[in-house]
Amino acid sequence: MSQFLTDPEKLSAFCQEVFLKMGCTPSDSALATDVLMQADLRGIDSHGVARLSGYIRLWKAGRIKADAVGSVVHETPGTATYDADSGLGLVMAANAMDIAIEKAKNVGSGWVAIQNSNHFGIAAYHAMKALPHDMIGMALTNASPLVSPTYSRERLLGTNPICFAIPAGEEAPVIIDLATSAAANGKLEIAQRTGKKVPSGWVQDAAGHPSTDPFALKAGGSLLPLGSNRESGSHKGYALSAFVDIFSGVLSGANYGPWVPPFVSFLPLAEDMPGKGIGHFVGAWRIDAFRSTDSFKQNMDQWIRRFRSATPTDEADRVIIPGEPEAQAEQIRHEQGIPLVEAVYNDLQHIASEFGLQFDLLKVI
Amino acid sequence: MSQFLTDPEKLSAFCQEVFLKMGCTPSDSALATDVLMQADLRGIDSHGVARLSGYIRLWKAGRIKADAVGSVVHETPGTATYDADSGLGLVMAANAMDIAIEKAKNVGSGWVAIQNSNHFGIAAYHAMKALPHDMIGMALTNASPLVSPTYSRERLLGTNPICFAIPAGEEAPVIIDLATSAAANGKLEIAQRTGKKVPSGWVQDAAGHPSTDPFALKAGGSLLPLGSNRESGSHKGYALSAFVDIFSGVLSGANYGPWVPPFVSFLPLAEDMPGKGIGHFVGAWRIDAFRSTDSFKQNMDQWIRRFRSATPTDEADRVIIPGEPEAQAEQIRHEQGIPLVEAVYNDLQHIASEFGLQFDLLKVI
Repeated sequence: MSQFLTDPEKLSAFCQEVFLKMGCTPSDSALATDVLMQADLRGIDSHGVARLSGYIRLWKAGRIKADAVGSVVHETPGTATYDADSGLGLVMAANAMDIAIEKAKNVGSGWVAIQNSNHFGIAAYHAMKALPHDMIGMALTNASPLVSPTYSRERLLGTNPICFAIPAGEEAPVIIDLATSAAANGKLEIAQRTGKKVPSGWVQDAAGHPSTDPFALKAGGSLLPLGSNRESGSHKGYALSAFVDIFSGVLSGANYGPWVPPFVSFLPLAEDMPGKGIGHFVGAWRIDAFRSTDSFKQNMDQWIRRFRSATPTDEADRVIIPGEPEAQAEQIRHEQGIPLVEAVYNDLQHIASEFGLQFDLLKVI
Repeated sequence: MSQFLTDPEKLSAFCQEVFLKMGCTPSDSALATDVLMQADLRGIDSHGVARLSGYIRLWKAGRIKADAVGSVVHETPGTATYDADSGLGLVMAANAMDIAIEKAKNVGSGWVAIQNSNHFGIAAYHAMKALPHDMIGMALTNASPLVSPTYSRERLLGTNPICFAIPAGEEAPVIIDLATSAAANGKLEIAQRTGKKVPSGWVQDAAGHPSTDPFALKAGGSLLPLGSNRESGSHKGYALSAFVDIFSGVLSGANYGPWVPPFVSFLPLAEDMPGKGIGHFVGAWRIDAFRSTDSFKQNMDQWIRRFRSATPTDEADRVIIPGEPEAQAEQIRHEQGIPLVEAVYNDLQHIASEFGLQFDLLKVI
């Protein structure tokens, strides 16, 4: 499988031009690009520029509005509901997080439920906006139904991520960002390309039987919740995904469960949708609303160091602090460039020719 | 294994007398009893009166103060930090939740971090206090270190539960209440009594190897995080448990990780404890801080009915809504009585003779 090493600055400039061509404002184009670039820099390849063609198809299908203007439709001192006007979730969730942070400054915590939105990229981007303010950030979103609850053969939930960004002192912040399914769709796609079976516990077939076929999902099966099966706790993964769906979809007035609009533009919208678009839920707690920020950060450093130095199960391993691998990837990719698989690179080249843009992304070494 | 069917009212009256004998005020005795009774009624046998002797031993060891008076040590309009004065977590977390609810009334959401506390019973009791106020409740607590993070052979985390209580309309509320470990200690104890192996993915031995021995934990092994192993997502269960530990322990100024005081009184406290007691984190979001409560409840009813009617994997099964089994148990046990295993019944009899109390708990049928 060929890979292309791209220059982060060139890739970023290219994405911005694409969003401008779609009709986004310059500031929205820069913001949407920043969200995608953070994904690619942090090694979350499935959520970066690999999604650009998907956003474009949704825009062409009239499901994403490029010149959308979000607005607060309901609020209290510590909460708000934000209508994303069918805009890019990348932009709208970030805007909503700014509102949550302002509210947290005033009353200790701030929460914004977002309706009428679209795919918001990596949850960590939005949650991490809290960090420079010495706040803990949280971000949730629902997503296209691909996951079956325990005992269901129907797909009723997305991979519904939960994210918390927690500041530390001398150590890097703890970034918890996890899909509530056992494995994400991207891992199945890797197995499809390499022709390998997937571990049991990731998917079930259309009849609801456990499967190791990486094509099981495409053949009408579903992803399994974290925990994989009832005995190992899949009812917990299902319940966590339900929490994300209810906060993102029901509390915001967006869609939920099987009615969440699919990310792929060729699938029709569900009939009788109960809400507007897809939904997110973001918020922030101020550290000093509970205790001194300095003491908190000192304790966080101790927490991180103690966990990192735990006796490992195997000498070659060590305990990994949530967010460490992504922070390492970011450092490396900033310097060395962002690798793109051939399919994504070709996708971008196609976008360039469609929009009449120059295509020059490669890193010169 | 013998079982005794006890009368909920007699059991409740007995518990109150025990707490009074320990030196709790009448109102604290009633509240602590209510928390334990809710556990037994809802079928969470491991967290009800089965724990009473454990609380008494901690009280005798001077680790639980019966006449404790909790107090707010820091606050903003939407948050507070509460010092539990080494009191019963059962009482202190409930008090703190009342404060969170009052703050949510004022600014939309309310959050209380609790330090210097002890075991708080079932998380659902505290989160469910939000329901009559048309709020969503959340409750977290850290606990005795029994769980190893992914790649660790050391126990650094408790079974650290996450709980959300979410109101519905005509349907029963959705109660999400889960330990972030693959299985709780109580399930190992059942396997110990019946001499059965446990499923792989629940425990590892002292060397960090996967085990199916129900005595592995007692022999120096550990419980595994939800997800069981790296391939199936144990890093996610570990990260969720870390979130609970950081919110309960670090944000509150309590202890965290391996320093969390053990529930069993015969284990010594850790040296150089960084905080005070064990910690909890509770809070509430007002529904109408985001949208109309009626619309929310109608959508919740639709959510619940759609999930419950999903096509099952097997005709004999159906999708279970989080909290349904506990609500059913509560109805049955209210009417038919609370079954106690012989060991717990004998434990209570022993407590009765120690405190000079009448012992008459059996349900008369």
